[in-house]
Amino acid sequence: MPTRKIAVLGSTGSIGTQTLDVIARDPESYEVVALAAGSNTELLLKQAHQFRPGVVSVGSEEAADKLRGLLPAGTKLLVGEEGLAESAAGSGADYVVCALVGALGLRSTLAAIDAGAAIGLANKETLVTAGHIVTKRAAVKGVRLLPIDSEHSAIFQCLNGEDDKAIKRLLITASGGSFRDRSREELVGVTVEDALKHPNWSMGAKITIDSATMVNKGLEVIEARWLFGLPYDRIDVVLHPESIVHSMVEFTDTSVIAQLGNPDMRVPIQYALTYPQRRPSPASPLDLVKAGTLRFREMDFARYPCLRMAYEAGRAGGTATTAFNAANEAAVARFLRGEISFLAIEEIIERVLDKHGAAAVALPDLETILETDAWARREASVLK
Amino acid sequence: MPTRKIAVLGSTGSIGTQTLDVIARDPESYEVVALAAGSNTELLLKQAHQFRPGVVSVGSEEAADKLRGLLPAGTKLLVGEEGLAESAAGSGADYVVCALVGALGLRSTLAAIDAGAAIGLANKETLVTAGHIVTKRAAVKGVRLLPIDSEHSAIFQCLNGEDDKAIKRLLITASGGSFRDRSREELVGVTVEDALKHPNWSMGAKITIDSATMVNKGLEVIEARWLFGLPYDRIDVVLHPESIVHSMVEFTDTSVIAQLGNPDMRVPIQYALTYPQRRPSPASPLDLVKAGTLRFREMDFARYPCLRMAYEAGRAGGTATTAFNAANEAAVARFLRGEISFLAIEEIIERVLDKHGAAAVALPDLETILETDAWARREASVLK
Repeated sequence: MPTRKIAVLGSTGSIGTQTLDVIARDPESYEVVALAAGSNTELLLKQAHQFRPGVVSVGSEEAADKLRGLLPAGTKLLVGEEGLAESAAGSGADYVVCALVGALGLRSTLAAIDAGAAIGLANKETLVTAGHIVTKRAAVKGVRLLPIDSEHSAIFQCLNGEDDKAIKRLLITASGGSFRDRSREELVGVTVEDALKHPNWSMGAKITIDSATMVNKGLEVIEARWLFGLPYDRIDVVLHPESIVHSMVEFTDTSVIAQLGNPDMRVPIQYALTYPQRRPSPASPLDLVKAGTLRFREMDFARYPCLRMAYEAGRAGGTATTAFNAANEAAVARFLRGEISFLAIEEIIERVLDKHGAAAVALPDLETILETDAWARREASVLK
Repeated sequence: MPTRKIAVLGSTGSIGTQTLDVIARDPESYEVVALAAGSNTELLLKQAHQFRPGVVSVGSEEAADKLRGLLPAGTKLLVGEEGLAESAAGSGADYVVCALVGALGLRSTLAAIDAGAAIGLANKETLVTAGHIVTKRAAVKGVRLLPIDSEHSAIFQCLNGEDDKAIKRLLITASGGSFRDRSREELVGVTVEDALKHPNWSMGAKITIDSATMVNKGLEVIEARWLFGLPYDRIDVVLHPESIVHSMVEFTDTSVIAQLGNPDMRVPIQYALTYPQRRPSPASPLDLVKAGTLRFREMDFARYPCLRMAYEAGRAGGTATTAFNAANEAAVARFLRGEISFLAIEEIIERVLDKHGAAAVALPDLETILETDAWARREASVLK
């Protein structure tokens, strides 16, 4: 593999730090040319001294002030959206890891695509809100979108070497999240603390809640639709409490190919970086005998209405998925602040989607997407 | 896929008839140019009229007499080893399904390789007894050996598109056979009838017994060593009672890729025929929710000493695997005739292998292999 010149956008977050961990273990294969983060200047400074990128970018002038004079000689300091765009497209990167959260992540992904860099994609909004724009632009530019998350990486690995025409359907696995053993009645009054206990993965608060509501799986279904170009009726979700089978592909000849492993994000991150090669990983090998049992249960859309709504928004298309995602983000933030109950998250999403229905735009441009995003957040923030 | 000109050697057996079933469902893709069988002239005659091959070959003059005058016009009738060789190498076949049992199968596989045809390989002896000869000759001729059995097909599917250097190990699954819930003490005095009840697959008597003794898995390990070119310490067997995961590959990055499906030999047969493409199959799709649970348990070499012996014979190499296979065949025949007990099968194999030890030849030629085979059968037939 030739040395990859890598820009890591969102370098201080969970995916960003694990990406740098993968890179640090195989320094011959990578040159970090840009690091971009928001406000965690302390960690960013450490990363800058370890990896000596040409460009470092932060979210605000205050953050930039904290770094001035402290960066390695020869490292350029940039700020804000402009700094982010230059990190993605002006740093000489031939591979951009897009791990920023939110609309900012979408813009910088598009900048990286325009610059012709390969994309390691961990920013959800990119495909959930602008799948039609991003996939088209990537195709025109001949840019590969390499998924960085366990389910899409699993599918990508299962598809390696296979003909698209041979695919019957994708089978995305879902652990069921922290409340999977509770009925809907038992969800009344659950606390933030309860919700944050994910059974298998240690993740951020937002995604752990999304896992409990199954919104996360809904977003993955929408991303899969764009990444793999299949209609929603060929993307299914199956409950798999152990999270060892990360996802599967069923082919027309009835063969099912599955990717299995312990939960460790460094594996899909590394696969996205080294594809089509594989390299040794620091992750612990899977011991199936120790795991003993893998269970599969039917997805229950009545128990998990957010997944039903995700499919509905996905099928409606256009701005509906943006509204779904934005409403959820605002509602989860309110739940984490203790303002609303757990079950109110899904009620709020449903009401925002209902309200959005008539105003939906089929093939929105970036501006319309951002407007919808802002509108849905406002709505979700005030609904009682 | 261009039309394949196919010769089916062993057309009236289990693999042969299922191969013709696959072919009959997609007649545009195949032209059957030769059918070879032993003595089941009734079925062979039906097949000849359905597929109209240029060549039909049978095992003996008596069998040929039963077909004379009854074959379709233009179908040539051949007999014996010569007929078999011409079916494999003189029928114009560009693809030969080798589904004959025994040494005859090995000879015709070699003839097909020499003719430059691709090989759909279902004859065990080919790799178990002559792996070093067959793989070398196939490599020289640029001939592909495509595995026709569920475990090796699974591994072959999991490796599709992957770099050999990325393989850490192969994980072959084993159902445990008809006596998997019995201890060794409970194997004393089991009947032929008990042994023939395989929990998952409906197969011939010989292979069902081999499944109960784990000899079958041992032969698969030896075949995998030659098919995939890995040393024995990178080929493991794991007990998986449901037989839904047909086998797996673990890669250096800790990812495990698995192939799953319902037990239906037509899937691996078809994959071997259509590779690298996949086609719709009449097999029933896998319903993982209905399956519910997949279990994995550690292989117990004390419970299944035949698997230990297979690894030992494999590591010893040379004629040892021939002795292992031949001793087993003779012993199983005796068990099926009611002459010896179930547990005597493994005792006989062990004693033949012990006796063979000093006489083992490291890189035997075909003649030495056949001599060893005959010797081991004789030994195994008379041991008390």
